[in-house]
Amino acid sequence: MIVVKAGGGAGLNWDGLAADLAVAAAFKPIVLVHGAHSGRDALAEALGRPVRTVTSPSGVDSVYTDEQALDIMLMAYAGAANKRAVASLQARGLNAVGLCGIDGRLWEARAKKDILVRENDKVKLLRGNLTGRVERINTGLLRLLLEGGYVPVITAPAISAGREIVNADADTAAALTALGLGAEALVFLFEAPGLLRDPDRPETLVREVSRGELDGAAAFARGRMAKKMMGVRKALEGGVRAVYFGDGRDAHPLSSALAGNGTVFR
Amino acid sequence: MIVVKAGGGAGLNWDGLAADLAVAAAFKPIVLVHGAHSGRDALAEALGRPVRTVTSPSGVDSVYTDEQALDIMLMAYAGAANKRAVASLQARGLNAVGLCGIDGRLWEARAKKDILVRENDKVKLLRGNLTGRVERINTGLLRLLLEGGYVPVITAPAISAGREIVNADADTAAALTALGLGAEALVFLFEAPGLLRDPDRPETLVREVSRGELDGAAAFARGRMAKKMMGVRKALEGGVRAVYFGDGRDAHPLSSALAGNGTVFR
Repeated sequence: MIVVKAGGGAGLNWDGLAADLAVAAAFKPIVLVHGAHSGRDALAEALGRPVRTVTSPSGVDSVYTDEQALDIMLMAYAGAANKRAVASLQARGLNAVGLCGIDGRLWEARAKKDILVRENDKVKLLRGNLTGRVERINTGLLRLLLEGGYVPVITAPAISAGREIVNADADTAAALTALGLGAEALVFLFEAPGLLRDPDRPETLVREVSRGELDGAAAFARGRMAKKMMGVRKALEGGVRAVYFGDGRDAHPLSSALAGNGTVFR
Repeated sequence: MIVVKAGGGAGLNWDGLAADLAVAAAFKPIVLVHGAHSGRDALAEALGRPVRTVTSPSGVDSVYTDEQALDIMLMAYAGAANKRAVASLQARGLNAVGLCGIDGRLWEARAKKDILVRENDKVKLLRGNLTGRVERINTGLLRLLLEGGYVPVITAPAISAGREIVNADADTAAALTALGLGAEALVFLFEAPGLLRDPDRPETLVREVSRGELDGAAAFARGRMAKKMMGVRKALEGGVRAVYFGDGRDAHPLSSALAGNGTVFR
Protein backbone atom coordinates (compact mmCIF):
# COMPACT_ATOMS: atom_id res chain seq x y z
CA MET A 1 0.00 0.00 0.00
CA ILE A 2 1.26 3.44 -0.97
CA VAL A 3 -0.42 6.66 0.17
CA VAL A 4 0.39 9.66 -2.02
CA LYS A 5 -0.40 13.21 -0.91
CA ALA A 6 -0.36 15.63 -3.85
CA GLY A 7 -0.20 19.32 -2.95
CA GLY A 8 -2.70 21.87 -4.18
CA GLY A 9 -0.29 24.16 -5.98
CA ALA A 10 -1.03 25.29 -9.53
CA GLY A 11 2.26 23.85 -10.81
CA LEU A 12 1.58 20.23 -9.92
CA ASN A 13 1.95 17.92 -12.91
CA TRP A 14 -1.30 15.97 -12.67
CA ASP A 15 -0.94 14.22 -15.98
CA GLY A 16 2.54 12.96 -15.05
CA LEU A 17 1.29 11.87 -11.65
CA ALA A 18 -1.64 10.01 -13.18
CA ALA A 19 0.75 8.22 -15.55
CA ASP A 20 3.00 7.23 -12.63
CA LEU A 21 0.05 6.07 -10.53
CA ALA A 22 -1.22 3.89 -13.37
CA VAL A 23 2.10 2.01 -13.31
CA ALA A 24 2.38 1.88 -9.52
CA ALA A 25 -1.16 0.55 -9.17
CA ALA A 26 -0.13 -2.59 -11.06
CA PHE A 27 2.09 -3.47 -8.09
CA LYS A 28 0.54 -1.92 -5.00
CA PRO A 29 -2.84 -0.63 -3.85
CA ILE A 30 -2.88 3.17 -4.04
CA VAL A 31 -4.65 5.87 -2.05
CA LEU A 32 -4.33 9.43 -3.32
CA VAL A 33 -4.90 12.41 -1.01
CA HIS A 34 -4.78 15.90 -2.51
CA GLY A 35 -5.02 19.59 -1.75
CA ALA A 36 -6.42 22.43 -3.84
CA HIS A 37 -5.25 25.66 -2.22
CA SER A 38 -4.39 27.40 -5.51
CA GLY A 39 -7.83 26.60 -6.95
CA ARG A 40 -9.48 27.66 -3.70
CA ASP A 41 -7.57 30.97 -3.63
CA ALA A 42 -8.44 31.70 -7.28
CA LEU A 43 -12.14 30.93 -6.73
CA ALA A 44 -12.27 33.00 -3.54
CA GLU A 45 -10.67 35.91 -5.40
CA ALA A 46 -13.04 35.57 -8.38
CA LEU A 47 -16.02 35.60 -6.00
CA GLY A 48 -14.73 38.68 -4.22
CA ARG A 49 -14.22 36.79 -0.97
CA PRO A 50 -10.44 36.48 -0.66
CA VAL A 51 -9.08 33.94 1.79
CA ARG A 52 -8.56 35.34 5.29
CA THR A 53 -5.39 34.18 7.01
CA VAL A 54 -5.09 34.42 10.79
CA THR A 55 -2.00 33.98 12.98
CA SER A 56 -1.93 32.10 16.27
CA PRO A 57 -0.19 33.63 19.30
CA SER A 58 2.75 31.27 18.61
CA GLY A 59 3.01 32.56 15.04
CA VAL A 60 1.36 29.75 13.05
CA ASP A 61 -0.76 30.94 10.10
CA SER A 62 -4.06 29.30 9.24
CA VAL A 63 -7.10 30.03 7.10
CA TYR A 64 -10.14 31.43 8.89
CA THR A 65 -13.16 29.44 7.75
CA ASP A 66 -16.75 30.65 8.01
CA GLU A 67 -19.76 29.12 6.19
CA GLN A 68 -19.00 30.99 2.98
CA ALA A 69 -15.33 30.05 3.04
CA LEU A 70 -16.44 26.46 3.60
CA ASP A 71 -18.66 26.59 0.51
CA ILE A 72 -15.73 27.88 -1.52
CA MET A 73 -13.60 25.09 -0.11
CA LEU A 74 -16.22 22.44 -0.94
CA MET A 75 -16.39 23.77 -4.49
CA ALA A 76 -12.63 24.00 -5.08
CA TYR A 77 -11.49 20.88 -3.20
CA ALA A 78 -14.36 18.35 -3.28
CA GLY A 79 -15.77 19.70 -6.56
CA ALA A 80 -13.34 20.88 -9.21
CA ALA A 81 -9.98 19.51 -7.99
CA ASN A 82 -11.23 16.15 -6.74
CA LYS A 83 -13.29 15.30 -9.81
CA ARG A 84 -10.65 16.56 -12.26
CA ALA A 85 -8.14 14.30 -10.46
CA VAL A 86 -10.54 11.34 -10.63
CA ALA A 87 -11.11 11.94 -14.35
CA SER A 88 -7.36 12.13 -15.03
CA LEU A 89 -6.87 8.77 -13.29
CA GLN A 90 -9.87 7.28 -15.11
CA ALA A 91 -8.30 8.45 -18.38
CA ARG A 92 -5.23 6.36 -17.44
CA GLY A 93 -7.35 3.30 -16.75
CA LEU A 94 -7.50 3.55 -12.95
CA ASN A 95 -10.98 3.12 -11.52
CA ALA A 96 -10.75 6.12 -9.19
CA VAL A 97 -13.46 7.15 -6.70
CA GLY A 98 -13.33 10.68 -5.33
CA LEU A 99 -14.30 11.40 -1.73
CA CYS A 100 -13.89 14.15 0.78
CA GLY A 101 -13.45 13.72 4.51
CA ILE A 102 -17.21 14.13 5.08
CA ASP A 103 -18.12 11.07 2.98
CA GLY A 104 -18.60 8.04 5.16
CA ARG A 105 -17.09 10.18 7.97
CA LEU A 106 -13.73 9.38 6.38
CA TRP A 107 -11.86 12.08 8.27
CA GLU A 108 -13.26 12.55 11.78
CA ALA A 109 -11.98 15.77 13.28
CA ARG A 110 -12.06 17.49 16.63
CA ALA A 111 -13.58 20.92 16.02
CA LYS A 112 -11.82 23.98 17.39
CA LYS A 113 -14.34 26.74 16.85
CA ASP A 114 -12.91 29.39 19.11
CA ILE A 115 -9.28 30.18 18.45
CA LEU A 116 -6.80 32.71 19.77
CA VAL A 117 -5.32 34.94 17.08
CA ARG A 118 -2.77 37.70 17.14
CA GLU A 119 -3.74 40.92 15.37
CA ASN A 120 -1.59 44.06 15.56
CA ASP A 121 0.28 42.65 18.56
CA LYS A 122 -2.96 41.97 20.46
CA VAL A 123 -4.23 38.47 21.19
CA LYS A 124 -7.98 38.06 20.79
CA LEU A 125 -10.56 35.29 20.68
CA LEU A 126 -12.05 34.55 17.26
CA ARG A 127 -15.32 32.62 17.34
CA GLY A 128 -17.12 30.50 14.75
CA ASN A 129 -14.01 29.19 13.00
CA LEU A 130 -15.10 26.02 11.21
CA THR A 131 -11.83 24.13 11.40
CA GLY A 132 -10.68 21.02 13.18
CA ARG A 133 -7.89 18.53 13.60
CA VAL A 134 -8.32 15.09 12.01
CA GLU A 135 -8.05 12.45 14.73
CA ARG A 136 -9.56 9.33 13.21
CA ILE A 137 -9.73 7.80 9.73
CA ASN A 138 -12.63 5.55 8.72
CA THR A 139 -10.42 2.94 7.12
CA GLY A 140 -13.41 0.63 6.70
CA LEU A 141 -14.71 2.61 3.75
CA LEU A 142 -11.23 2.77 2.21
CA ARG A 143 -10.69 -0.97 2.60
CA LEU A 144 -14.09 -1.66 1.06
CA LEU A 145 -13.17 0.41 -2.00
CA LEU A 146 -9.62 -0.97 -2.26
CA GLU A 147 -10.88 -4.56 -2.07
CA GLY A 148 -13.37 -3.68 -4.79
CA GLY A 149 -10.52 -2.59 -7.05
CA TYR A 150 -11.13 1.14 -6.75
CA VAL A 151 -8.50 3.84 -6.18
CA PRO A 152 -9.72 6.24 -3.46
CA VAL A 153 -8.95 9.91 -4.16
CA ILE A 154 -9.49 11.95 -1.00
CA THR A 155 -9.52 15.63 -0.16
CA ALA A 156 -10.61 18.06 2.56
CA PRO A 157 -12.82 19.11 4.30
CA ALA A 158 -13.41 16.79 7.26
CA ILE A 159 -16.41 16.18 9.56
CA SER A 160 -16.61 16.85 13.28
CA ALA A 161 -18.00 14.60 16.00
CA GLY A 162 -21.03 16.92 15.99
CA ARG A 163 -21.42 16.15 12.26
CA GLU A 164 -20.41 19.59 11.10
CA ILE A 165 -18.20 20.23 8.10
CA VAL A 166 -14.78 21.49 9.21
CA ASN A 167 -11.66 22.60 7.37
CA ALA A 168 -8.71 20.37 8.31
CA ASP A 169 -5.09 19.86 7.38
CA ALA A 170 -4.74 17.23 4.64
CA ASP A 171 -1.06 16.46 5.40
CA THR A 172 -1.95 15.20 8.86
CA ALA A 173 -4.90 13.29 7.44
CA ALA A 174 -2.67 11.68 4.80
CA ALA A 175 -0.24 10.52 7.49
CA LEU A 176 -3.10 9.08 9.59
CA THR A 177 -4.50 7.38 6.49
CA ALA A 178 -1.11 5.73 5.82
CA LEU A 179 -0.98 4.60 9.46
CA GLY A 180 -4.56 3.35 9.52
CA LEU A 181 -4.09 1.29 6.38
CA GLY A 182 -0.67 -0.03 7.38
CA ALA A 183 0.89 1.53 4.28
CA GLU A 184 4.55 0.79 3.62
CA ALA A 185 5.22 4.18 2.06
CA LEU A 186 3.84 7.71 2.26
CA VAL A 187 4.79 10.21 -0.46
CA PHE A 188 4.32 13.99 -0.24
CA LEU A 189 4.51 15.82 -3.58
CA PHE A 190 4.60 19.63 -3.70
CA GLU A 191 6.16 22.59 -5.48
CA ALA A 192 9.73 22.22 -4.23
CA PRO A 193 12.50 19.65 -4.74
CA GLY A 194 12.04 18.25 -1.22
CA LEU A 195 13.00 19.41 2.26
CA LEU A 196 15.32 22.41 1.89
CA ARG A 197 17.60 23.83 4.58
CA ASP A 198 16.95 27.21 2.99
CA PRO A 199 13.57 27.35 1.17
CA ASP A 200 14.97 29.87 -1.34
CA ARG A 201 17.96 27.69 -2.36
CA PRO A 202 17.14 24.38 -4.10
CA GLU A 203 20.78 23.32 -3.69
CA THR A 204 20.20 22.99 0.07
CA LEU A 205 18.05 19.89 -0.55
CA VAL A 206 18.27 17.34 2.26
CA ARG A 207 18.58 13.91 0.64
CA GLU A 208 18.11 11.57 3.57
CA VAL A 209 16.82 11.90 7.10
CA SER A 210 16.96 9.07 9.63
CA ARG A 211 14.53 8.94 12.56
CA GLY A 212 17.28 10.19 14.86
CA GLU A 213 17.76 13.24 12.64
CA LEU A 214 14.05 14.19 12.57
CA ASP A 215 14.24 16.88 15.26
CA GLY A 216 17.12 18.60 13.54
CA ALA A 217 15.39 18.46 10.15
CA ALA A 218 12.10 19.73 11.58
CA ALA A 219 13.89 22.75 13.04
CA PHE A 220 14.30 24.46 9.66
CA ALA A 221 10.85 23.59 8.27
CA ARG A 222 8.44 26.54 8.13
CA GLY A 223 4.72 26.99 7.38
CA ARG A 224 3.20 24.16 5.34
CA MET A 225 6.51 22.26 5.49
CA ALA A 226 6.33 22.20 9.29
CA LYS A 227 2.91 20.48 9.07
CA LYS A 228 4.32 17.94 6.64
CA MET A 229 7.19 17.26 9.07
CA MET A 230 4.63 16.51 11.81
CA GLY A 231 3.01 14.09 9.38
CA VAL A 232 6.39 12.47 8.70
CA ARG A 233 6.99 11.98 12.41
CA LYS A 234 3.52 10.50 12.99
CA ALA A 235 3.94 8.13 10.06
CA LEU A 236 7.43 6.87 10.95
CA GLU A 237 6.60 6.49 14.64
CA GLY A 238 3.45 4.56 13.70
CA GLY A 239 5.28 2.03 11.54
CA VAL A 240 5.30 3.42 7.98
CA ARG A 241 8.69 2.22 6.64
CA ALA A 242 9.57 5.23 4.50
CA VAL A 243 8.24 8.71 3.81
CA TYR A 244 9.24 10.53 0.62
CA PHE A 245 9.16 14.23 -0.26
CA GLY A 246 9.26 14.90 -3.99
CA ASP A 247 8.81 17.60 -6.60
CA GLY A 248 5.24 17.49 -7.91
CA ARG A 249 6.25 19.59 -10.93
CA ASP A 250 8.56 16.83 -12.21
CA ALA A 251 7.74 14.97 -15.46
CA HIS A 252 7.25 11.83 -13.34
CA PRO A 253 6.57 13.11 -9.84
CA LEU A 254 5.93 9.79 -8.08
CA SER A 255 8.64 7.63 -9.63
CA SER A 256 11.17 10.44 -9.20
CA ALA A 257 10.31 10.77 -5.51
CA LEU A 258 10.45 7.00 -4.94
CA ALA A 259 13.86 6.95 -6.69
CA GLY A 260 15.14 9.26 -3.97
CA ASN A 261 15.43 12.46 -6.00
CA GLY A 262 13.79 14.43 -3.20
CA THR A 263 14.05 13.72 0.51
CA VAL A 264 13.78 10.22 1.96
CA PHE A 265 12.85 9.71 5.62
CA ARG A 266 13.45 6.25 7.11
CA MET B 1 -34.64 -0.40 -2.35
CA ILE B 2 -35.87 3.14 -2.93
CA VAL B 3 -34.17 5.59 -5.30
CA VAL B 4 -34.97 9.23 -4.55
CA LYS B 5 -34.15 11.99 -7.04
CA ALA B 6 -34.17 15.42 -5.36
CA GLY B 7 -34.31 18.39 -7.70
CA GLY B 8 -31.79 21.20 -7.63
CA GLY B 9 -34.19 24.06 -6.95
CA ALA B 10 -33.42 26.55 -4.20
CA GLY B 11 -36.71 25.78 -2.43
CA LEU B 12 -36.07 22.12 -1.75
CA ASN B 13 -36.47 21.25 1.93
CA TRP B 14 -33.22 19.36 2.52
CA ASP B 15 -33.62 19.16 6.26
CA GLY B 16 -37.09 17.64 5.94
CA LEU B 17 -35.85 15.23 3.28
CA ALA B 18 -32.92 14.15 5.47
CA ALA B 19 -35.33 13.53 8.36
CA ASP B 20 -37.59 11.43 6.10
CA LEU B 21 -34.65 9.48 4.68
CA ALA B 22 -33.38 8.67 8.18
CA VAL B 23 -36.73 6.96 8.90
CA ALA B 24 -37.01 5.26 5.50
CA ALA B 25 -33.46 3.88 5.74
CA ALA B 26 -34.53 1.84 8.76
CA PHE B 27 -36.76 -0.19 6.42
CA LYS B 28 -35.20 -0.07 2.96
CA PRO B 29 -31.79 0.59 1.39
CA ILE B 30 -31.73 4.13 -0.01
CA VAL B 31 -29.94 5.76 -2.94
CA LEU B 32 -30.23 9.53 -3.25
CA VAL B 33 -29.67 11.27 -6.59
CA HIS B 34 -29.76 15.06 -6.67
CA GLY B 35 -29.49 18.12 -8.88
CA ALA B 36 -28.06 21.56 -8.17
CA HIS B 37 -29.22 23.85 -10.98
CA SER B 38 -30.05 26.77 -8.70
CA GLY B 39 -26.62 26.62 -7.06
CA ARG B 40 -24.97 26.25 -10.46
CA ASP B 41 -26.86 29.24 -11.88
CA ALA B 42 -25.96 31.40 -8.87
CA LEU B 43 -22.28 30.45 -9.04
CA ALA B 44 -22.14 31.02 -12.80
CA GLU B 45 -23.73 34.43 -12.32
CA ALA B 46 -21.35 35.36 -9.47
CA LEU B 47 -18.37 34.38 -11.63
CA GLY B 48 -19.64 36.47 -14.54
CA ARG B 49 -20.17 33.41 -16.72
CA PRO B 50 -23.94 33.02 -16.86
CA VAL B 51 -25.33 29.69 -18.05
CA ARG B 52 -25.86 29.54 -21.81
CA THR B 53 -29.04 27.79 -22.90
CA VAL B 54 -29.33 26.44 -26.43
CA THR B 55 -32.42 25.17 -28.23
CA SER B 56 -32.50 22.09 -30.45
CA PRO B 57 -34.23 22.24 -33.87
CA SER B 58 -37.18 20.39 -32.28
CA GLY B 59 -37.42 23.03 -29.54
CA VAL B 60 -35.80 21.29 -26.55
CA ASP B 61 -33.69 23.58 -24.35
CA SER B 62 -30.39 22.42 -22.89
CA VAL B 63 -27.34 23.95 -21.24
CA TYR B 64 -24.30 24.48 -23.44
CA THR B 65 -21.29 23.11 -21.58
CA ASP B 66 -17.69 24.07 -22.33
CA GLU B 67 -14.70 23.40 -20.02
CA GLN B 68 -15.43 26.46 -17.90
CA ALA B 69 -19.11 25.60 -17.56
CA LEU B 70 -18.03 22.08 -16.58
CA ASP B 71 -15.80 23.46 -13.82
CA ILE B 72 -18.73 25.50 -12.52
CA MET B 73 -20.87 22.38 -12.66
CA LEU B 74 -18.27 20.31 -10.79
CA MET B 75 -18.09 22.99 -8.12
CA ALA B 76 -21.84 23.46 -7.69
CA TYR B 77 -23.00 19.84 -8.10
CA ALA B 78 -20.15 17.56 -6.97
CA GLY B 79 -18.72 20.14 -4.55
CA ALA B 80 -21.15 22.32 -2.63
CA ALA B 81 -24.52 20.60 -3.18
CA ASN B 82 -23.29 17.01 -2.91
CA LYS B 83 -21.23 17.50 0.24
CA ARG B 84 -23.87 19.69 1.93
CA ALA B 85 -26.39 16.90 1.23
CA VAL B 86 -24.02 14.26 2.61
CA ALA B 87 -23.43 16.35 5.75
CA SER B 88 -27.18 16.82 6.28
CA LEU B 89 -27.71 13.04 6.09
CA GLN B 90 -24.71 12.43 8.37
CA ALA B 91 -26.27 14.86 10.87
CA ARG B 92 -29.35 12.59 10.87
CA GLY B 93 -27.25 9.50 11.53
CA LEU B 94 -27.11 8.16 7.97
CA ASN B 95 -23.63 7.15 6.83
CA ALA B 96 -23.83 8.91 3.47
CA VAL B 97 -21.13 8.80 0.79
CA GLY B 98 -21.24 11.44 -1.93
CA LEU B 99 -20.27 10.59 -5.50
CA CYS B 100 -20.67 12.07 -8.94
CA GLY B 101 -21.11 10.12 -12.14
CA ILE B 102 -17.34 10.24 -12.83
CA ASP B 103 -16.45 8.33 -9.65
CA GLY B 104 -16.01 4.65 -10.37
CA ARG B 105 -17.50 5.45 -13.81
CA LEU B 106 -20.84 5.39 -12.04
CA TRP B 107 -22.72 7.09 -14.90
CA GLU B 108 -21.33 6.06 -18.26
CA ALA B 109 -22.57 8.37 -20.98
CA ARG B 110 -22.50 8.55 -24.74
CA ALA B 111 -20.94 11.92 -25.59
CA LYS B 112 -22.70 14.16 -28.11
CA LYS B 113 -20.14 16.88 -28.75
CA ASP B 114 -21.56 18.38 -31.91
CA ILE B 115 -25.18 19.39 -31.64
CA LEU B 116 -27.64 21.17 -33.88
CA VAL B 117 -29.10 24.31 -32.37
CA ARG B 118 -31.65 26.81 -33.56
CA GLU B 119 -30.65 30.47 -33.31
CA ASN B 120 -32.77 33.27 -34.80
CA ASP B 121 -34.66 30.74 -36.94
CA LYS B 122 -31.42 29.33 -38.36
CA VAL B 123 -30.17 25.83 -37.57
CA LYS B 124 -26.42 25.60 -37.01
CA LEU B 125 -23.86 23.09 -35.78
CA LEU B 126 -22.39 23.83 -32.34
CA ARG B 127 -19.12 22.01 -31.62
CA GLY B 128 -17.34 21.14 -28.38
CA ASN B 129 -20.46 20.69 -26.27
CA LEU B 130 -19.39 18.54 -23.32
CA THR B 131 -22.66 16.77 -22.73
CA GLY B 132 -23.84 13.21 -23.07
CA ARG B 133 -26.64 10.77 -22.42
CA VAL B 134 -26.23 8.30 -19.55
CA GLU B 135 -26.54 4.77 -20.92
CA ARG B 136 -25.04 2.55 -18.25
CA ILE B 137 -24.87 2.60 -14.44
CA ASN B 138 -21.99 0.96 -12.57
CA THR B 139 -24.23 -0.75 -10.05
CA GLY B 140 -21.23 -2.70 -8.69
CA LEU B 141 -19.93 0.34 -6.82
CA LEU B 142 -23.41 1.13 -5.51
CA ARG B 143 -23.98 -2.44 -4.30
CA LEU B 144 -20.56 -2.44 -2.61
CA LEU B 145 -21.47 0.72 -0.69
CA LEU B 146 -25.04 -0.40 0.11
CA GLU B 147 -23.81 -3.76 1.43
CA GLY B 148 -21.29 -1.85 3.56
CA GLY B 149 -24.15 0.10 5.15
CA TYR B 150 -23.51 3.38 3.33
CA VAL B 151 -26.11 5.61 1.67
CA PRO B 152 -24.88 6.65 -1.79
CA VAL B 153 -25.62 10.28 -2.69
CA ILE B 154 -25.07 10.83 -6.41
CA THR B 155 -25.03 13.83 -8.69
CA ALA B 156 -23.91 14.90 -12.17
CA PRO B 157 -21.70 15.11 -14.19
CA ALA B 158 -21.13 11.78 -15.93
CA ILE B 159 -18.14 10.25 -17.75
CA SER B 160 -17.96 9.32 -21.43
CA ALA B 161 -16.57 6.12 -22.96
CA GLY B 162 -13.51 8.22 -23.89
CA ARG B 163 -13.14 9.07 -20.18
CA GLU B 164 -14.12 12.70 -20.56
CA ILE B 165 -16.33 14.54 -18.10
CA VAL B 166 -19.74 15.24 -19.65
CA ASN B 167 -22.84 17.03 -18.42
CA ALA B 168 -25.80 14.65 -18.37
CA ASP B 169 -29.43 14.57 -17.33
CA ALA B 170 -29.79 13.32 -13.75
CA ASP B 171 -33.46 12.33 -14.13
CA THR B 172 -32.59 9.73 -16.75
CA ALA B 173 -29.64 8.56 -14.65
CA ALA B 174 -31.89 8.22 -11.59
CA ALA B 175 -34.33 6.06 -13.56
CA LEU B 176 -31.48 3.86 -14.87
CA THR B 177 -30.10 3.60 -11.32
CA ALA B 178 -33.49 2.40 -10.05
CA LEU B 179 -33.64 -0.15 -12.89
CA GLY B 180 -30.07 -1.34 -12.41
CA LEU B 181 -30.54 -1.90 -8.69
CA GLY B 182 -33.98 -3.49 -9.08
CA ALA B 183 -35.52 -0.76 -6.91
CA GLU B 184 -39.18 -1.16 -6.01
CA ALA B 185 -39.81 2.59 -6.00
CA LEU B 186 -38.42 5.70 -7.64
CA VAL B 187 -39.35 9.10 -6.22
CA PHE B 188 -38.87 12.44 -7.98
CA LEU B 189 -39.03 15.50 -5.70
CA PHE B 190 -39.09 19.01 -7.17
CA GLU B 191 -40.64 22.45 -6.79
CA ALA B 192 -44.21 21.62 -7.79
CA PRO B 193 -46.99 19.52 -6.25
CA GLY B 194 -46.54 16.79 -8.88
CA LEU B 195 -47.51 16.39 -12.53
CA LEU B 196 -49.81 19.29 -13.44
CA ARG B 197 -52.09 19.48 -16.47
CA ASP B 198 -51.40 23.22 -16.44
CA PRO B 199 -48.01 24.09 -14.83
CA ASP B 200 -49.40 27.40 -13.58
CA ARG B 201 -52.38 25.86 -11.78
CA PRO B 202 -51.59 23.56 -8.81
CA GLU B 203 -55.24 22.46 -8.76
CA THR B 204 -54.66 20.60 -12.04
CA LEU B 205 -52.54 18.02 -10.19
CA VAL B 206 -52.78 14.54 -11.69
CA ARG B 207 -53.10 12.09 -8.79
CA GLU B 208 -52.65 8.74 -10.48
CA VAL B 209 -51.38 7.57 -13.84
CA SER B 210 -51.52 3.96 -14.98
CA ARG B 211 -49.09 2.62 -17.58
CA GLY B 212 -51.82 2.80 -20.22
CA GLU B 213 -52.30 6.50 -19.46
CA LEU B 214 -48.58 7.39 -19.77
CA ASP B 215 -48.75 8.70 -23.34
CA GLY B 216 -51.61 11.01 -22.49
CA ALA B 217 -49.88 12.26 -19.35
CA ALA B 218 -46.57 12.82 -21.16
CA ALA B 219 -48.33 14.97 -23.73
CA PHE B 220 -48.75 17.93 -21.37
CA ALA B 221 -45.29 17.71 -19.72
CA ARG B 222 -42.87 20.43 -20.80
CA GLY B 223 -39.15 21.12 -20.29
CA ARG B 224 -37.67 19.37 -17.27
CA MET B 225 -40.98 17.62 -16.63
CA ALA B 226 -40.78 15.99 -20.08
CA LYS B 227 -37.39 14.50 -19.14
CA LYS B 228 -38.82 13.19 -15.88
CA MET B 229 -41.68 11.59 -17.83
CA MET B 230 -39.15 9.75 -20.00
CA GLY B 231 -37.54 8.54 -16.76
CA VAL B 232 -40.93 7.38 -15.49
CA ARG B 233 -41.54 5.39 -18.67
CA LYS B 234 -38.07 3.78 -18.58
CA ALA B 235 -38.50 2.84 -14.92
CA LEU B 236 -41.99 1.36 -15.23
CA GLU B 237 -41.16 -0.54 -18.42
CA GLY B 238 -38.04 -1.92 -16.75
CA GLY B 239 -39.87 -3.31 -13.74
CA VAL B 240 -39.90 -0.57 -11.08
CA ARG B 241 -43.29 -1.08 -9.38
CA ALA B 242 -44.16 2.55 -8.68
CA VAL B 243 -42.81 5.99 -9.49
CA TYR B 244 -43.81 8.98 -7.35
CA PHE B 245 -43.69 12.70 -8.07
CA GLY B 246 -43.78 14.86 -4.95
CA ASP B 247 -43.33 18.39 -3.70
CA GLY B 248 -39.75 18.80 -2.46
CA ARG B 249 -40.75 21.98 -0.59
CA ASP B 250 -43.09 20.01 1.71
CA ALA B 251 -42.28 19.67 5.44
CA HIS B 252 -41.81 15.93 4.81
CA PRO B 253 -41.11 15.64 1.10
CA LEU B 254 -40.50 11.89 0.88
CA SER B 255 -43.23 10.59 3.19
CA SER B 256 -45.72 12.98 1.62
CA ALA B 257 -44.87 11.74 -1.88
CA LEU B 258 -45.04 8.07 -0.83
CA ALA B 259 -48.44 8.77 0.78
CA GLY B 260 -49.71 9.76 -2.65
CA ASN B 261 -49.99 13.51 -2.14
CA GLY B 262 -48.31 14.14 -5.50
CA THR B 263 -48.59 11.94 -8.58
CA VAL B 264 -48.33 8.15 -8.45
CA PHE B 265 -47.42 6.16 -11.57
CA ARG B 266 -48.03 2.41 -11.50
